[in-house]
Amino acid sequence: MHIVITGAAGFLGQRLVTRLLERGRLDDQTIRRLTLLDQIEAPVPDADGVEIVAQALDVTVPGALDEVLASGPDVIYHLAAVVSSAAEADLDLGMRVNFDATRALIEGCRQHELAATRLLMASSVAAYGGELPEVLDDMTALQPQNSYGAQKAMCELLINDYSRRGLVDGRVLRLPTIVIRPGRPNAAASSFASSILREPLNGEDAVCPVPTDLEMFVMSPGKVVEALIHGAEVPGERWAPFRAFMLPGITVSVAEMLETLREVAGDAAVARVRHEPDARVTAIVSSWPARFDTAKARRLGFEGDGNFREIIEAFVDERP
Amino acid sequence: MHIVITGAAGFLGQRLVTRLLERGRLDDQTIRRLTLLDQIEAPVPDADGVEIVAQALDVTVPGALDEVLASGPDVIYHLAAVVSSAAEADLDLGMRVNFDATRALIEGCRQHELAATRLLMASSVAAYGGELPEVLDDMTALQPQNSYGAQKAMCELLINDYSRRGLVDGRVLRLPTIVIRPGRPNAAASSFASSILREPLNGEDAVCPVPTDLEMFVMSPGKVVEALIHGAEVPGERWAPFRAFMLPGITVSVAEMLETLREVAGDAAVARVRHEPDARVTAIVSSWPARFDTAKARRLGFEGDGNFREIIEAFVDERP
Repeated sequence: MHIVITGAAGFLGQRLVTRLLERGRLDDQTIRRLTLLDQIEAPVPDADGVEIVAQALDVTVPGALDEVLASGPDVIYHLAAVVSSAAEADLDLGMRVNFDATRALIEGCRQHELAATRLLMASSVAAYGGELPEVLDDMTALQPQNSYGAQKAMCELLINDYSRRGLVDGRVLRLPTIVIRPGRPNAAASSFASSILREPLNGEDAVCPVPTDLEMFVMSPGKVVEALIHGAEVPGERWAPFRAFMLPGITVSVAEMLETLREVAGDAAVARVRHEPDARVTAIVSSWPARFDTAKARRLGFEGDGNFREIIEAFVDERP
Repeated sequence: MHIVITGAAGFLGQRLVTRLLERGRLDDQTIRRLTLLDQIEAPVPDADGVEIVAQALDVTVPGALDEVLASGPDVIYHLAAVVSSAAEADLDLGMRVNFDATRALIEGCRQHELAATRLLMASSVAAYGGELPEVLDDMTALQPQNSYGAQKAMCELLINDYSRRGLVDGRVLRLPTIVIRPGRPNAAASSFASSILREPLNGEDAVCPVPTDLEMFVMSPGKVVEALIHGAEVPGERWAPFRAFMLPGITVSVAEMLETLREVAGDAAVARVRHEPDARVTAIVSSWPARFDTAKARRLGFEGDGNFREIIEAFVDERP
């Protein structure tokens, strides 16, 4: 089995590579080849019996993916994207990377007659917006209030239509907010959600810019990676009639996050979180829905975290 | 006021032109100029004091709309599209006309800094699909099961995002099935819905290919044109947060259509309808939802037909 990953140098891509190599198999087939694509050359881990090639390329350049598609990959994980803040700051960049490159990828699959190739794309909770109900479900409209979400929602429609026509076997998973991300705080509006846990757990201070009664819909990196793997294994026909849905995150308030931090790491850890309300961040994050009935994902066997404590404990266990 | 209409030679475009000239005004401004665009040169009616230019052009050619956008139109009605059967038969054609040309149009508005230009696009009931609820509402997801619907849904997202960013004042109306269309039966799956009324009213035979208990969501051509006009007059901010919704059609079964035909034109008219079930047509049409709660359209002052008898009577009154 030959697996291609775009955005392979990113945090999620790297974790996916590690997990695929640990498993050695996907959908009952031995993984023989991994092609890691990103703007920079992704790190190539050692792995017996698996040919791993990392290639630096720009997915927005016409024909950039021709060579890899001509090799007939079995599974493509399309994780390459510009994040929401960048897509909002630069409409053209977002359209080029998030939409046009995805269109070129599925059009490339069609040209190379990769009807059986499983193409998995990550979409996002940012695709939701507008006058939302209290609890969202699989038939809630996508009315995104940011360009990143609009671009992802357009890709969903395109991938679904190409799949319905039998041109590719596309699958889209809408990701909850991923908590706890490793590394440092970044420009994402949701950065604090990892930061207020990760920094105290590492003995550092953090800032919470939102009211503690704010609820979020979250999933651990480990469960997201398991969902990406399961997503390649569920038969394509079970994804119809619409090949995109929300993964089963869990709903948690910031207060509950901090309370769980206290249970795991004590009062001193929680005391490291300074509350400095930021109206801009609060406006963005509070526009994201936090309560979902993820019936389709559960029907197809996708699993979320059991509770928020497991998310913190997984982070603690996984630290280098 | 300068109004541009793409697809101006089509049935809806022609009716819109007639109605605009009858009114002479749009949004309390005198109509001074009409630009009619289509693949063929649209007929130019006589109209005192209104400069009407018809131009044959291909909206899919890069830069085709530059000249007209440079003239700074106040309102653009974007009705040009390839119909659902053609988009299903030829994916590339549908993408080029229904999606790429719309993208070029709003991108052109951005380039020419037409932030205040009202851009109205017609979308369709064909954008709905999948595992639908009994009654759809403004937050029901678009999960189209045909390429035409997918392309229209992508345009909706794009127009909404460009409008949210203040680059254009976009508005999208999802049209119910238009009944009674004038002219002859065509290749559209919904063609019978007009044919089983129009032909008997004209003393001709017609074929009904679907079971009579099938329900449809319909609107008369007159009400659709009134909606296009009202759509240019409702202030842009009232369309937020999502600038696309279903118009208030009425739900009617084929049996009710034929019963109303009997009331208006007698038993002899209904006897002209031959029932010849067609599984292919039935499959397509029965996948279209027929029951909607169109709260947003009604809140914004859009009006539908009062009942099906009015639809038939309007057709009879309007016949040349």
